[in-house]
Amino acid sequence: MDRIPILKMGEFLLVSIQVDMHDRLALALQDDLTEGIVKHRARGVMIDISALEMVDSFIGRMLSNIANMARLLDSHTVVVGMQPSVAITLVELGLPMRGIRTALDVEKGIALLRAATQGSSGDGIADN
Amino acid sequence: MDRIPILKMGEFLLVSIQVDMHDRLALALQDDLTEGIVKHRARGVMIDISALEMVDSFIGRMLSNIANMARLLDSHTVVVGMQPSVAITLVELGLPMRGIRTALDVEKGIALLRAATQGSSGDGIADN
Repeated sequence: MDRIPILKMGEFLLVSIQVDMHDRLALALQDDLTEGIVKHRARGVMIDISALEMVDSFIGRMLSNIANMARLLDSHTVVVGMQPSVAITLVELGLPMRGIRTALDVEKGIALLRAATQGSSGDGIADN
Repeated sequence: MDRIPILKMGEFLLVSIQVDMHDRLALALQDDLTEGIVKHRARGVMIDISALEMVDSFIGRMLSNIANMARLLDSHTVVVGMQPSVAITLVELGLPMRGIRTALDVEKGIALLRAATQGSSGDGIADN
């Protein structure tokens, strides 16, 4: 596994992190996500971390970096599915992830992104 | 990693397979998915395999089993993101996956599930 798949859902991208991140994988994810945002003109990125039972400062920094890169590309980032223990660890690590929005699950994440991108032309998954 | 996360999206469930499947993980996924279908009254299941560059008969059987279990629980299954090499391998292995619907990506998978479940009461992600 040298790539984390990025799923396109309307005008949003969804990434589900399930494996231990290491340097190369994190860099590949940053590359793929930024390219994906531009290629698909994505207005938002959801990063699902429900499979992560713990995080370290490396993961915390990676999430922050992705959110910052996405913002520069005019895209919003929402981290979804954070486990309670992860929230505790992030704060204890001194990484309160300011500037990163979170939602309890993918549905709430989509709602948050929709609200954030309201007023856009929107060819999102809402359209039937 | 002993669990593959299942993401709820409206009346559908989404699973992204990114890691090598082994017996225990496949059984856990079957358990979690069938429980998830009942718990969330899910009308459809999407299994994203875009990260898989090859499959073997074990994976092929697992996908078939999941589709059959879902059908018994009145839920439709769509496999999304299959790579060309995987399609070739499945046929060469004598596993043409009859009865399993496929779609090129998550968006097309959602459209397929919506069409398949049309007429249901639907509290799906389409509703704003």
